Amino acid sequence: MKKIVVDMMGSDLGSVATKEGVSLFHEKHPDVELILVGKEAELKDMTFAKIVNADDVVEMTCGALEVIRRKGSSMVIALNTAKEENADGIISAGATGAFLSAATLILKKIPGVQRPALVTAFPQLEGNGYTTLLDVGASNTNTPEELAQFAFMGTCYSRAVYGIKEPRVCLLSNGSEEGKGSPVGKEAYQLLKEMKNINFAGNIEGDKLLKGLADVVVSDGYTGNVMLKTTEGTAKGMGKLLKQGFMSKLRCKIGYLFAKPAVKLLTSKLDPSNVGGAMLMGVNGVVVKAHGNSTGKSFHSAMEVLYHLIEGDVITKIKDAFVEEKAE
Amino acid sequence: MKKIVVDMMGSDLGSVATKEGVSLFHEKHPDVELILVGKEAELKDMTFAKIVNADDVVEMTCGALEVIRRKGSSMVIALNTAKEENADGIISAGATGAFLSAATLILKKIPGVQRPALVTAFPQLEGNGYTTLLDVGASNTNTPEELAQFAFMGTCYSRAVYGIKEPRVCLLSNGSEEGKGSPVGKEAYQLLKEMKNINFAGNIEGDKLLKGLADVVVSDGYTGNVMLKTTEGTAKGMGKLLKQGFMSKLRCKIGYLFAKPAVKLLTSKLDPSNVGGAMLMGVNGVVVKAHGNSTGKSFHSAMEVLYHLIEGDVITKIKDAFVEEKAE
Repeated sequence: MKKIVVDMMGSDLGSVATKEGVSLFHEKHPDVELILVGKEAELKDMTFAKIVNADDVVEMTCGALEVIRRKGSSMVIALNTAKEENADGIISAGATGAFLSAATLILKKIPGVQRPALVTAFPQLEGNGYTTLLDVGASNTNTPEELAQFAFMGTCYSRAVYGIKEPRVCLLSNGSEEGKGSPVGKEAYQLLKEMKNINFAGNIEGDKLLKGLADVVVSDGYTGNVMLKTTEGTAKGMGKLLKQGFMSKLRCKIGYLFAKPAVKLLTSKLDPSNVGGAMLMGVNGVVVKAHGNSTGKSFHSAMEVLYHLIEGDVITKIKDAFVEEKAE
Repeated sequence: MKKIVVDMMGSDLGSVATKEGVSLFHEKHPDVELILVGKEAELKDMTFAKIVNADDVVEMTCGALEVIRRKGSSMVIALNTAKEENADGIISAGATGAFLSAATLILKKIPGVQRPALVTAFPQLEGNGYTTLLDVGASNTNTPEELAQFAFMGTCYSRAVYGIKEPRVCLLSNGSEEGKGSPVGKEAYQLLKEMKNINFAGNIEGDKLLKGLADVVVSDGYTGNVMLKTTEGTAKGMGKLLKQGFMSKLRCKIGYLFAKPAVKLLTSKLDPSNVGGAMLMGVNGVVVKAHGNSTGKSFHSAMEVLYHLIEGDVITKIKDAFVEEKAE
């Protein structure tokens, strides 16, 4: 039986969104054991799950250093519970920096991993696949060696989650030719070219990301985070503008009624609440960070990501790959 | 009489696109003197303009160092012509790195400027204004001091081009709070906080860019370039997906016929060919880089940007501002 620990208190909406998300998940997967960590009084109606009380809540402004002292917080108790109970996965919508550092500290890095990375996936607009992107914010600066390792970790992820045998790995850059890129990126390019355990396909620019030309895109955490948010912001902004346009004229209003399915397809494809979660890759355990402003629906979707990663046995696969790597 | 020099040969489509763009521009502004640099045989029908022959064409792969030796190229001859003829502005669709370095070398930096920046503007999806963004690719790494100067240069641009008196300047970051950002960004934040000649409004994340919360957004050239291309790619991809959706069902096709104006409004607002050009700011002269894959329409639009910058007397304003700055 799979076992998942949920930090119920981290999101901007408190336990309202997480409770809704957990309930939706439980309906779909009644066979998964759920351990919910948070204020007992708010959770007592969740009778289908085990409740672990935690009175303290880590604020969204809580930093990576501060969280260590918050031993009574739902976030830290959830991580310790996951470790003690040998859970298959853990999820939180709490402060990113705090969650990532506490997870690394408590669950420890997989042997061989220099630095964990936050991994997410983009829908490919042309085609039905997904492009794996890392790091999207676990670090704000990385070494060329770390980027090279991200390429390998991304390859493992793409294989485990999307079943792509030889994922094409590209390096995010400001130009497609070799020799373009940030100083760190240029050095990473040279390392990637020599790696035998990945299928390196050169540099990729930001405008090609959604085209499906790469299965894995590697970036430093700072630029990856900016890119992720820019994509979300552009998609959201366009959706809003489109709606305004439809409502501006009677003729457009009528058109909208007819064309609704097409518009829905578009907005749902790029709606972040349909992806909802990013995995912290490189630690012992499936760790998913949900959006801080998660709704019930998007928290549920992040839980589905977590479940999918557990089912794909991604941690074992990464561990094995790193062990093999060392042996070679 | 205003005088503009055009490198006719740089674009992917050769002189076909530039000729169309120049003709459209001339129709609208018959009073502007045009000097066209390129292969005379291809340009001889452009009888309304002065033609300067250049037999060599700089390839798109030409780098910043190589261009210096290409004295017979349309790019270098155009820049030298602009200098000798004391032209008001110059435009090229040629290789970015080559054009920027040749322009800096030939036209020289404005006294006081540490490093020129490539400047462009984004339409604000909520509202009718534009957000000025720099650097979008003149450098691939910058110092905190350069970022601080970009903030001041962007302020000058926003004032001259959009008439905003006290533009709100934000620093691109991976989080809105102080203390977020790349190592260089964090140091720049401290400098920006102390500057008296700009209206600093803190950090901004990529998803807020199109919201119009900032009039000027400052970034290092590498991340700025990635962000610009990501926005373009997302907008283009969504437009394509929307069209596919409309065509997938008869009912949606009918809807599209009615809703067309709304869709057109959307795609035109984010169509790069409606902005089309970026200014190299910090050198002596109005220097505009058009997209390498410019069509006639987008090259014309880039020429309009150039014209607008000349009309706004942006170079004099920047020079004056830098002199004042020194005197204070």
